[in-house]
Amino acid sequence: MKLLRFGEPGAEKPGLLDAQGAVRDLSAVLPDLTGDALGPASLRRLAALDPAALPLAPEGARVGSCVARPGKFICIGLNYADHARETGKEPPPEPIVFMKATSAVVGPNDDVEIPRGAAKTDWEVELGVVIGTRAKYVGEADALDHVAGYCVVNDVSERAFQSEHGGQWTKGKSHDTFGPTGPWLVTRDEIPDPQALDLWLEVDGVRRQTGNTRTMIFGVAGLVSYLSRFMTLEPGDIIATGTPPGVGLGLKPPVFLRAGQEMRLGIEGLGEQRQRTVAATRESGR
Amino acid sequence: MKLLRFGEPGAEKPGLLDAQGAVRDLSAVLPDLTGDALGPASLRRLAALDPAALPLAPEGARVGSCVARPGKFICIGLNYADHARETGKEPPPEPIVFMKATSAVVGPNDDVEIPRGAAKTDWEVELGVVIGTRAKYVGEADALDHVAGYCVVNDVSERAFQSEHGGQWTKGKSHDTFGPTGPWLVTRDEIPDPQALDLWLEVDGVRRQTGNTRTMIFGVAGLVSYLSRFMTLEPGDIIATGTPPGVGLGLKPPVFLRAGQEMRLGIEGLGEQRQRTVAATRESGR
Repeated sequence: MKLLRFGEPGAEKPGLLDAQGAVRDLSAVLPDLTGDALGPASLRRLAALDPAALPLAPEGARVGSCVARPGKFICIGLNYADHARETGKEPPPEPIVFMKATSAVVGPNDDVEIPRGAAKTDWEVELGVVIGTRAKYVGEADALDHVAGYCVVNDVSERAFQSEHGGQWTKGKSHDTFGPTGPWLVTRDEIPDPQALDLWLEVDGVRRQTGNTRTMIFGVAGLVSYLSRFMTLEPGDIIATGTPPGVGLGLKPPVFLRAGQEMRLGIEGLGEQRQRTVAATRESGR
Repeated sequence: MKLLRFGEPGAEKPGLLDAQGAVRDLSAVLPDLTGDALGPASLRRLAALDPAALPLAPEGARVGSCVARPGKFICIGLNYADHARETGKEPPPEPIVFMKATSAVVGPNDDVEIPRGAAKTDWEVELGVVIGTRAKYVGEADALDHVAGYCVVNDVSERAFQSEHGGQWTKGKSHDTFGPTGPWLVTRDEIPDPQALDLWLEVDGVRRQTGNTRTMIFGVAGLVSYLSRFMTLEPGDIIATGTPPGVGLGLKPPVFLRAGQEMRLGIEGLGEQRQRTVAATRESGR
């Protein structure tokens, strides 16, 4: 099942993609795709619906982030062996964990802001894992039972803010629009092996990232289990599992984003995103 | 005005403290103390109520965190000159910013868990700043206009998880119960100068932390302005502004928490917290 949210920022409705690729309106069935909607009972209920009996969404409606108001947006750093190498760092012995502000989450095709004073804004295609049931102290063997599904995430990053202003990475990961998420939450049953998915990203038509989730250092089950030792994962939480090689920082010389460019990215079976870059303003949509 | 939440975890009601120190039930007036309830119009409406006309909360009701479901829990590291010295570090040239998982937020007197495998669980009394209106690219002169009020936060920290498992601090800051918040959100009008507040913390009756917000390296207005360059602050977001000297890690030799102890902490004008430490279980209340 492919779940999504459509409509204007802040007024999205839940929907699902039917077999013909049309968006069906779920708003008579549930209020929104928040954590409560992502547990096994709720997903079974949605799977039992006849999509053809649901109203069609308006043609060309904007697509929002595929999860409404995630409680946490957890990111894993340097989690691809080939990406760790391009940054000149050793593969980490344990997962590197940091947080992206949840206020950074936007739809998959919304504009991405270049913050004021930014000089090193960069792209990162990532497999997003969406939690379906509460996970605390779960073993690796049971970990995937807590996953509702998967989605595409662009973990947009400002490298100067991340590493040249003291301390922790959060500052470079949290600007509004730095978390395009979607288009779809693809339920776990459709992705039998999350460690065998191709990922790619282009900037202005130039292929920059090409990878496969098989080169992750810590796989999805291991990450869910590991994280659940340090914090409780709750329904609707998103884990961005790290990026494959080809980020701007890793190019020689490095290449960064400026306003007026276009990113396109995608993951096998999870759909595609497309964002324009624009200069940041005081007011930005969600 | 002193706003609070009372009732069992997950079923708290909003309330306010009347002039006699009794809790009055606000649940007929607003659903909960979420971000929307903390803007200037909402606070003016609450201030215009006659507390004596509101029902009394049940005697001895549990007090919850004073903000429901904050979108972000942002923490500032090493923000007291005297605390930076005790950790052996230079005062940072810019604020150190990291995130605590919002799932760690609990009431001011709830039990604090010692995580499995923890060896260095520590205390940190901090001035919490609660955002009332959206702040993006705000100057220092206007920054306090975006603050709804202040509260006590215990930024409980597991130092081994924070610093000995690779990379970023989030792992040591995010365990369930590591964010006791409250008892009250004290509105900004009652705290004319947030840089002149005494803070203190005791463990088993032994005074461990004694400080005053005047030794903050970056004050509240500066922090709100600074953070708003990197992320949008939204109503209900909490900023924990750093801790004064006397954390367990800074003692010689260091002293850490074990199950069965009691922390008491408070800030001038903002009330007190009291927590028992207990061993972590798979299931914990919120």
